[in-house]
Formats: sequence, structure tokens, C-alpha cells
Amino acid sequence: MKTRAAVAFEAGKPLEIVDVDLEGPKWGEVLIEIKATGICHTDEFTRSGADPEGIFPAILGHEGAGVVVECGPGVTSVKVGDHVIPLYTPECRECASCKSQKTNLCTAIRATQGKGVMPDGTSRFSYKGETIYHYMGCSTFSNYTVMPEIAVAKISEKAAFDKACYIGCGVTTGVGAVMNTAKVEFGATAAVFGLGGIGLNVIQGLKMAGADMIIGVDLNDDKEEWGRKFGMTHFINPSKGGDVVEQIVNMTKRGDDLIGGADYTFDCTGNVNVMRQALEASHRGWGESVIIGVAGAGQEIATRPFQLVTGRTWKGTAFGGARGRTDVPKIVDWYLDGKIQIDPMITHTMGLEDINKGFDLMHKGESIRSVVIF
Amino acid sequence: MKTRAAVAFEAGKPLEIVDVDLEGPKWGEVLIEIKATGICHTDEFTRSGADPEGIFPAILGHEGAGVVVECGPGVTSVKVGDHVIPLYTPECRECASCKSQKTNLCTAIRATQGKGVMPDGTSRFSYKGETIYHYMGCSTFSNYTVMPEIAVAKISEKAAFDKACYIGCGVTTGVGAVMNTAKVEFGATAAVFGLGGIGLNVIQGLKMAGADMIIGVDLNDDKEEWGRKFGMTHFINPSKGGDVVEQIVNMTKRGDDLIGGADYTFDCTGNVNVMRQALEASHRGWGESVIIGVAGAGQEIATRPFQLVTGRTWKGTAFGGARGRTDVPKIVDWYLDGKIQIDPMITHTMGLEDINKGFDLMHKGESIRSVVIF
Repeated sequence: MKTRAAVAFEAGKPLEIVDVDLEGPKWGEVLIEIKATGICHTDEFTRSGADPEGIFPAILGHEGAGVVVECGPGVTSVKVGDHVIPLYTPECRECASCKSQKTNLCTAIRATQGKGVMPDGTSRFSYKGETIYHYMGCSTFSNYTVMPEIAVAKISEKAAFDKACYIGCGVTTGVGAVMNTAKVEFGATAAVFGLGGIGLNVIQGLKMAGADMIIGVDLNDDKEEWGRKFGMTHFINPSKGGDVVEQIVNMTKRGDDLIGGADYTFDCTGNVNVMRQALEASHRGWGESVIIGVAGAGQEIATRPFQLVTGRTWKGTAFGGARGRTDVPKIVDWYLDGKIQIDPMITHTMGLEDINKGFDLMHKGESIRSVVIF
Repeated sequence: MKTRAAVAFEAGKPLEIVDVDLEGPKWGEVLIEIKATGICHTDEFTRSGADPEGIFPAILGHEGAGVVVECGPGVTSVKVGDHVIPLYTPECRECASCKSQKTNLCTAIRATQGKGVMPDGTSRFSYKGETIYHYMGCSTFSNYTVMPEIAVAKISEKAAFDKACYIGCGVTTGVGAVMNTAKVEFGATAAVFGLGGIGLNVIQGLKMAGADMIIGVDLNDDKEEWGRKFGMTHFINPSKGGDVVEQIVNMTKRGDDLIGGADYTFDCTGNVNVMRQALEASHRGWGESVIIGVAGAGQEIATRPFQLVTGRTWKGTAFGGARGRTDVPKIVDWYLDGKIQIDPMITHTMGLEDINKGFDLMHKGESIRSVVIF
């Protein structure tokens, strides 16, 4: 079949909207009609050529929502007509990682996904006879895509596609980092570095978890209003002077605690220097710092080991520690129940032909999330 | 009163054995007759001048055991005749840190202890009218010393002082890192970097916890026999070639786990490059790496944040996460019950006048632990 798609033919070039060929689903695979897809920084990381593991030509996009339109043989967990979110982190429930019950990082199809192909080693996409690669196992910048059923979360039919798609990456990453990775408890203090989409979702996760103090940190004063909208209680703009670690340590001294430091800190910037600040702003003795942002290729984090020896823990999270088929449908329900907000974060929508404008808005810092509606 | 003590008059010089003046215990303090004390690398770190926070002249030593011989006013938790272990990490049970129940790093007397004085801001030691400073709140290289009662663990009278003293630092640090910090579970895989005294105690902690695989790593082949004595199941000498991280990752692939990596790793070297190896040798998705060793002044640890984002956790531990007055008496009982071994680790004993020989043995790598018996 043919499908309209935005293709990244070359690193650093705008996407091109063309009709590509798509083979139907093979064993254990489903064909999905993508109804909406978010444009995420990770897509841009690859599009720009900064991602050392980027493969071209490819159909990017990994934050979508849609409907199952065809099931290949052997598919049992979803059926035609199901509303679904594609998962760049699958959940096979059978690999050693899934069975460990200690991680969401399913390894069932890791090797082929990293190579831009389906589990059988081939791509379903082509253009004028040339292979077009899959991206993060999703390729949601295509009106139709093929996914293994283990990488598909069945969600409520009540959720609008142009909102639910954001749960495919940003919402789950931010809220999940709080719920699954940090396991923040009621009454905690927290600091969130970087108030882009991920940071705002961390903030609303913290609010849900019942944190007492939610400190947002951003270089852009305009983000203060955004942060407060989702539950931020304090704001620091480090460009206004003063050491941000010291400020957080002082703000979080409560009762007879003369030490200070946030119980939980989250880096949502991808900046390795900020990651260090986040760690060091966490509380001596028990502070936990979670890295969410993706750093540039080859960059390293550093600190004095004394920071860890005196009781701080340094962690990271991918897809918010969420098991896609198990947790993503729950987050969709939270959205439908009004427990989390998504609508105000979708600042721009556009058709596929305008997808490059969505990237421009991201570059200019003018969008929280741009969504392409098919 | 007068007491015989080994005084570090100057950084980098041998200790001098002299009779110093000791004031009796003030409010909330006890006078302890030290019966035995271990010589630890941390004493040497300060003696040598490498410790940027070292204060001179001081009476070093922090790994002792003895008997309470006098109680100051207000003391309620110990009495004359009690056998005790001095605690460089006190447990006041009243500060915000103790009350948090999330850390053993009591902060009640942190500021004064760091300055080499008692909680009232003065030293009890002097020599020819000049102040001699306390060290780590203990100064066990003195036949008599004064401690706040919150820094004294009452232990069983059945434990021999020349063995129990090792529980004052090395044993508790190693065993506690497994029990309290990593909370290793039955059947786990683990790697221990550095098979000195701490490493051997980590190994016996892992054995107690029921780990399936206990991999020891040391540059010295002679350590293999030592490791196996306490429960090590596999040994790697990195100087024999091969990448140690890769070796551990391959050795720990079990069943259908094709990823590999140890569930828990422990750095007992103080070498920041080894700390990185320990982190990276831990399992993708859930591995935890615990830093126990103390790095040189100003040194930093580093890694790619990807290591954390893909599910590894970097932690540290001080005094094995043990609450001194609560946990140290339990560890003494474990020793008396035969659950942990100490006797074979005490490789040398000597009188106070030979204490510098104990430091020499440590330098030459000839001792696991040297103990001074008064």
C-alpha cells in the first residue's frame, strides 16, 4: 500500500512529504493508522544529525496515537478497530528484562529496533524501490505504520488522538519518572531543572504524588507561568545570579532540618552540567536525582564521589520507567479522569505538510508541544 | 588525668607515643578505656597529609573497643563497666537526619566533630599545655578517650576487644554496604572491586545475604585466596588483560538473560576510574553500584549519563549505612554467633609503641588489618 509520510532523507535536511510504499503486517505485527503524532526533541536530535546512531533515510516520529487497521497472523492482544499508542519501549513480558520485574527496558527487539528494521530484520517502508528505515520502532510521521504487537498499547477509545499521542512519550516520561523511577512520596520536596514539556510533566507528576514543594528551574522567566499552571510552587531563574544549588538547599530547610536539599531532583535539560547541579541540590543522606534529559553524544556527567558517599543517589529513567502495555493505558485513564492535564501543553497543531514548521517552533522555544494531525 | 597516646603532631610524620593530658567527661560525655584499636586507611589518609580537612596536632584512630570507666552528668544510655565501640558516626535519634529514618548520617555533632573538638567546642586532650585535637570524634589511638554518649555503642561483653574493634569501622562498612545500602537479595550476582579489608567484608556480607555469584576483582593474585576464604566465587585480575567490565558482563549472563552485568557492584578501592568500571559492570535496567572507597581530594567520578538512563543506579555509603547504636551491637552478635568472621582478618597485633609499624605493614600491603592492643 501507499502512505503519506514525512521522510528524513538526509541528516540536517528538512523532512520531505512523499507517498511511500508500506508492506502489510507480518507475523505478530499490526498495521496502524496514525491519527496524530507529537514532534519531540528526540526526533530533532536525530533529524539534525547530532545522534551518532541516526540512520537515514528514515521516517522519524515516536509519539503517536491511532487505530489498528489490520492484524498480521498470530496477533492476539489487539484487534482491528482498537485505539492504540505505539511504544518505542515495547513490553514483551517474556524476555529476561521483563520477567525481572525490575525494569521497563524490554530487550525482545532491541537489536533490530536500533538498526531501523522490524524484528525479522527488514523494513516495511520503501520509496521508489529504496529502503526507508523505521525509527525507534515507531515511525509515527507516517499516516500508516507497522508495529510488532508487543510494542502497541491498547488505550481507551474516549481519549482524543491529538492529546493521547503525547502520552506516547513526553507525558509518560515526565509523570513516570516521578511515579516509577523516583517513587516520590506525599509531602516530599522536589526540584525540576528545565521547564520544557518533560519538566512540566514531571511537575504535574509531583503534584499528583502530593509533593509539598515543587521548585522549578529555568533560564527563561516565561516558564514560571507555565510551571505554576501545573503545580510548581517556587521558581528559580539561575541567570538572575546566585548559586542554584545553594538556593535550593536553603529553600528546602524545613523544621529542624538544618542541612537542606531537595528529597528528589530531576534533570530535564540534557545538559551535563545541570545534571551535576541537580545531584548536588538533592538532600544529603537520602536525596535522589533522576536524569531524564538526553545528553549530547560523548558528553559525560561528573561529581565528587563524596556526594554519593554522603547519601545521594544518582539515577536515570527511560520512558519514565513505564511498562508500555501495562502503564500507558493507565495514564490515558488518568488524563480522562482529569488527574493530569495535557490539553494546555499542546500549543500548536498542524497538518503533516507543515511538520517542518513544528520543528521550527521547537527551535525557537515557542511551543511546549506541536502535534501533527493526519 | 594522663593517658598514653600516639600523637600526630605534624602531617606526614610518624606518630609519637607520649603521655597526654585528658580532661574528664563533661555533660553527656563518657570516659572510655580503649582496649584495642584497628589501624585504618582513613587514619593514614589524614596522617600522610593527603586529607585536606586534616587537623594537627591530633590523636588519630577511629576503630576501637573498650570499657566505660566514667560517666559525665546527664548520661543515661551507658554505665561504668559497659563494653563499648566508639562511633565516628553518632546516632542521636533526635536530629532531622536520624528522625527521617532514611539515613545513618546523624548531624547532631557534625560541625564540631569536623573541627576536632567535642560538642561544646573544646578539646579534652592537651600536651604540655597545647591543645591536641580529637579525630573523627573518636581518637582511639589513646589508651583513654572521651566521647559523647550518642557516639557510643554498647556491645556484648562476650566479644574480645581485639576483634570487636574492627566492627567500629571496616566490618560494619563492608557488611553494612551490602545489608543497608544495597539491600542485596538472595540469589543476586555481585562484583567487588578491591579485596582489602573492606572488600573482604563486602564479600562476607554478600555471602550472608545469599548472593549466587560473588566476583572479586584485584590486581594482586594473592588476594584470590583471601576472597575465597570469605565467600568469593569468581576472581578477576584485570592486569592479566581483557576488559574487566566486559568480563563481568559476560560472566553474569544467566538463563535467558543475554544482557549481563552484576545486579550489585561495590567499589572498595577509592580509585575514581574503578568506580566508573564498577558502575558500568552493573546490569542494564536494574544494576546498583555502591561507592565505599574514599577518593583522593578533588578527584571526580564520571560516566556517560546513558549508563544511568538505561537503568543503573549510582550510590555511596558511609559506615555501611549503619546506625551505630542500633546496628553495631547486632553485628557484634553476628560475630559471636559465627555468622561473620573477623579473626582471620586480624593479621597483625602490636602494642601502642609499635603503631608506626602497623602503618608500614599497611603501606606494604602485608596486612589485612593491624590492631593495637593496649
